[in-house]
Amino acid sequence: MTSSLQLSIIKVTTDSVSPGPDLLAIEEPLEIRVAYGDRVQNLAVTMRTPGDDADLALGFLFTEGIIKGGGDVQEVAPATLSCSENRQNTILVTLKEGIAPNLQRAERNFYTTSSCGVCGKASIDAIRTVSAFHAETRKAKDGSEVEGEHRGEESGGQESSEEGIDPVFILGLPERLVRAQAVFADTGGLHAAALFGKGGELLCIREDVGRHNAVDKLIGATLRGAGIPLSESVLLLSGRASFELVQKAAMAGIPVIAAMSAPSSLAVSLAEEFHITLIGFLRDNRFNIYSAAHRIEMPVHENTDV
Amino acid sequence: MTSSLQLSIIKVTTDSVSPGPDLLAIEEPLEIRVAYGDRVQNLAVTMRTPGDDADLALGFLFTEGIIKGGGDVQEVAPATLSCSENRQNTILVTLKEGIAPNLQRAERNFYTTSSCGVCGKASIDAIRTVSAFHAETRKAKDGSEVEGEHRGEESGGQESSEEGIDPVFILGLPERLVRAQAVFADTGGLHAAALFGKGGELLCIREDVGRHNAVDKLIGATLRGAGIPLSESVLLLSGRASFELVQKAAMAGIPVIAAMSAPSSLAVSLAEEFHITLIGFLRDNRFNIYSAAHRIEMPVHENTDV
Repeated sequence: MTSSLQLSIIKVTTDSVSPGPDLLAIEEPLEIRVAYGDRVQNLAVTMRTPGDDADLALGFLFTEGIIKGGGDVQEVAPATLSCSENRQNTILVTLKEGIAPNLQRAERNFYTTSSCGVCGKASIDAIRTVSAFHAETRKAKDGSEVEGEHRGEESGGQESSEEGIDPVFILGLPERLVRAQAVFADTGGLHAAALFGKGGELLCIREDVGRHNAVDKLIGATLRGAGIPLSESVLLLSGRASFELVQKAAMAGIPVIAAMSAPSSLAVSLAEEFHITLIGFLRDNRFNIYSAAHRIEMPVHENTDV
Repeated sequence: MTSSLQLSIIKVTTDSVSPGPDLLAIEEPLEIRVAYGDRVQNLAVTMRTPGDDADLALGFLFTEGIIKGGGDVQEVAPATLSCSENRQNTILVTLKEGIAPNLQRAERNFYTTSSCGVCGKASIDAIRTVSAFHAETRKAKDGSEVEGEHRGEESGGQESSEEGIDPVFILGLPERLVRAQAVFADTGGLHAAALFGKGGELLCIREDVGRHNAVDKLIGATLRGAGIPLSESVLLLSGRASFELVQKAAMAGIPVIAAMSAPSSLAVSLAEEFHITLIGFLRDNRFNIYSAAHRIEMPVHENTDV
């Protein structure tokens, strides 16, 4: 599927006006449907860049908590409609016999009302109830569940035997992303999300006009593919880190997120809760660490607790 | 309401690691409800930066086609909940007696299924059916409705007596936006949307972690305020121009959009359909014109039709 489109525009500078061709990132709606038992349910319509639609649908269902993983799925295919022209804008995820989607999640995403109102904390709590990964980070050394406010520190202790990530590796990621972003290079109009292994290898990259779609495509690709070990990977985001993007990483069990621009307050809270290392403003040979700093190897170890 | 939050982070460069304070843009959910007759309906939960919530709610209802304008509204106020702590994350828009919201719109936004499937063209058609402004741009000189493919050119002819916009004014907008963006300066984490009068004056500016929220806040402010003439204004966007943002401008009758980053294919199609002048990549003393170029004064008039 084509991801960019050429059209004729006018280019203006302080001292010239010149008509010429330009490439635009394509944006088109995609309707995601799920089939289970003898029912078909419309889940969402998202504005996306065509391409990797099956990955997008699968990633969306998984990161929104509607399915538990790729094992729930029989088939992902464009829905057959009466008019073939628009066939590529509807995609149908067919679940295996006996599997039911968690549609409660789809109705309100994770922006949830708690008993006393709508708030960020309730949104975080809602993710904890469905994520398969949160419990793991809460296990203490003896395997018992750790409760309380200081889980982060305890997990930090638990993982201290892990090999730390070299800051030089992190600092080099933006340049590698730009080199790998094919459509962005043409249009300047796409967000990207990429997964790197801790050994430094680029595992997978996806682009989209919507940053949430780029992450869903990436995670969907790993669910369909040969089992990329998300728990050993670093997720690189070309833009900001919002709550929604950290939510998707948390649902997939990704331990490190590096964003080239700013994180939001709730993104940091969620990263802390899930013990995810959140890096922001990764550009111009510097970055900030907002949570779970112990995963990054540092020459200076004192006074660096976040 | 506070829009930023201080916390302690670690700053890493190629040769230093230093802990220190940092300011983050706040992201929290806002539930938007509408009250009409004896009913209260939950419409949406959006992740936004607290502040200007009434503007956001009003702008959202208007740009999504749920209400026809500020005149439909009796009151906008935080919803009273049992727990006062979260009171500020739910807002209730009460409509005047006898006014009913167009809730069909809220269900699917404008991403609509046509008789033959989901597509960008159907999404554009859906906006045309509810916007109050599209018909106006279609009137020819004698006041009759113009039909057909060449409406853009005819309106262009109609508006040729309008004073054109000086490119130098457009080129200066990004610097003025940066100077006016208070929270962005602190956090680097907010999108901005601003309205400028054709005389060059900054009419209104709003910031948010979500770019659609920034535009809704801006348009909501004009609905509540002293009648800013949107039909004479230029909308400046700090980032990309997506379909959704052009949709909101089209619903509000804004004739010129200038985005500091790339537009998408569907944003350009919608701008063409609504005869909106869409400018992109407005930065470093240059910009591109993607549609309705006749509104921009140009030293070279030949070969500049888009």
